[in-house]
Amino acid sequence: MNYPKFEVTILGCGSATPGAGRHPSAQALHHFQDVFLIDCGEGTQDRLKEFDVKWNRINQIFISHLHGDHIFGLPGLLSTFHLNRRERKIQIFSPTGLRGPLEFLLQTGGESLSFEIEWVELNHEGSKKVWESDRLEVEAIPLDHRISTYGYIFKEKEHPRSILVEELSRFPKLNHLQLRSLKLGLDVHLESGEIIPNAVVTEKKLEARSYAYWSDTRYHSEYSTILSGMTALYHEATFLDNLKDKAQSTYHSTAKEAAELAKLSHVKTLLIGHFSSRYASIMDHQKEAQQIFPQAFAVEEGKTYVVL
Amino acid sequence: MNYPKFEVTILGCGSATPGAGRHPSAQALHHFQDVFLIDCGEGTQDRLKEFDVKWNRINQIFISHLHGDHIFGLPGLLSTFHLNRRERKIQIFSPTGLRGPLEFLLQTGGESLSFEIEWVELNHEGSKKVWESDRLEVEAIPLDHRISTYGYIFKEKEHPRSILVEELSRFPKLNHLQLRSLKLGLDVHLESGEIIPNAVVTEKKLEARSYAYWSDTRYHSEYSTILSGMTALYHEATFLDNLKDKAQSTYHSTAKEAAELAKLSHVKTLLIGHFSSRYASIMDHQKEAQQIFPQAFAVEEGKTYVVL
Repeated sequence: MNYPKFEVTILGCGSATPGAGRHPSAQALHHFQDVFLIDCGEGTQDRLKEFDVKWNRINQIFISHLHGDHIFGLPGLLSTFHLNRRERKIQIFSPTGLRGPLEFLLQTGGESLSFEIEWVELNHEGSKKVWESDRLEVEAIPLDHRISTYGYIFKEKEHPRSILVEELSRFPKLNHLQLRSLKLGLDVHLESGEIIPNAVVTEKKLEARSYAYWSDTRYHSEYSTILSGMTALYHEATFLDNLKDKAQSTYHSTAKEAAELAKLSHVKTLLIGHFSSRYASIMDHQKEAQQIFPQAFAVEEGKTYVVL
Repeated sequence: MNYPKFEVTILGCGSATPGAGRHPSAQALHHFQDVFLIDCGEGTQDRLKEFDVKWNRINQIFISHLHGDHIFGLPGLLSTFHLNRRERKIQIFSPTGLRGPLEFLLQTGGESLSFEIEWVELNHEGSKKVWESDRLEVEAIPLDHRISTYGYIFKEKEHPRSILVEELSRFPKLNHLQLRSLKLGLDVHLESGEIIPNAVVTEKKLEARSYAYWSDTRYHSEYSTILSGMTALYHEATFLDNLKDKAQSTYHSTAKEAAELAKLSHVKTLLIGHFSSRYASIMDHQKEAQQIFPQAFAVEEGKTYVVL
């Protein structure tokens, strides 16, 4: 099946303390022609360039929380948009408290930005839809970290139904609007009074896909309710199981816990990242996760993972 | 002659718009065991690691001005010091206006830093000594840029004089304090009433060296008064001579202008940097400068240049 693009490029998969050659958190999520930036650690703009991400297509930035390793790349990225004379508005979704210091810092240069920032400040409990387009909607869900933190779920809306050309040829020729109704799953009422039943002339070819970004957070089996049936889950896995207590006390997770949640949630693919710099290799994380959930990948920077 | 270490590692030699593989401004100036950080563009902490700079030895950071390409690496670097549980105070010298936004941004993580920052905010005209140790003093001098900007001059104090052991052996054995006086250039008065003339038993082996950091700024021949006789001058050279007007209107300099100032000032070595990303190669900058001042080098990141 020829699915439209839905994939994620890993820009940074390290945690707060730099090291082991990994960079702080950032991901570019590609959906059709859109690019969504998720978190923006220091140097994100360098990685966007290095990995050939079409960063002019970024119109939305989703920030999970206000620890430095998730936000310190924002001043530089926004300044570069300004130097490139960007005019299109950008939307920044983040827990309350980012706008003030960021605007303050950006003002030190003595110029105002060439584009508008629309700040969407999050301060809600439970799940909330924070953005949507014709094709996608994004929900923000509070996670359990040391400060206010949100996970994000990117859910495709139902794909248009495919028209069965042969079946449809038995009916009078339809106009543009009638064809569109069919693709949306509606029956078409002809002027003659005849009804073209959608189920007869269309079929569902593509399942709606979804991607969940879950970082930083402690493990909670209860997350499986909201993550149930997601296509792909990215979950932080700062530590290995032998540092489970440390994960708990620092509000992080282990590779094993991430895998357990993936299993409970019946997702198709698990990506793990946000690795502590104490680990030179991340193969142990992958092994630990795969023992519980075989379709688990310890992500690498510069690689792009398809949401499937 | 075996001079103690005085050299500068280039961490970033690009200008504001990223590109051409260069990073924003930052330099590590090594003097004896000390490391001084000059400017701190985004990703400076990565380059400090990559180029093996002993960054724990940084106790002073000198910021020239508050454009993003000179400061956006500070939040990350200071956070990393915090994560590494640094306890030693750090001094930050910069034009007024950095402290507020930086402290505000660092607070978003919800923790206070493990170490103290001593802010030295500059807001003076003319030259002013802003720091000194036993061996070195640092002056800040206003430059001509779009916003308040300071150049920095790092001047060695006189090196201790070397004792001529053979000459001294003709006199009675001296104690520790008397030897120290000799090294400082003083005559020694013995209890017997005899005087040991400094000029007879010591010699000056090492000249005091100096390094000037001049970025960002328009060209002014008048700078040669204060730069006269400096050992090494780093001067920005954002453009080539054919964009002299653009340099003027954006408050920057050309390679030719940097070389003219070096010649007027009779420095020994000229380093040029802060290259616009429009130049893929910087060899034309070096050529243009060397036509006027042969001992000119277009700097490269990761390279270390000796102050001589």
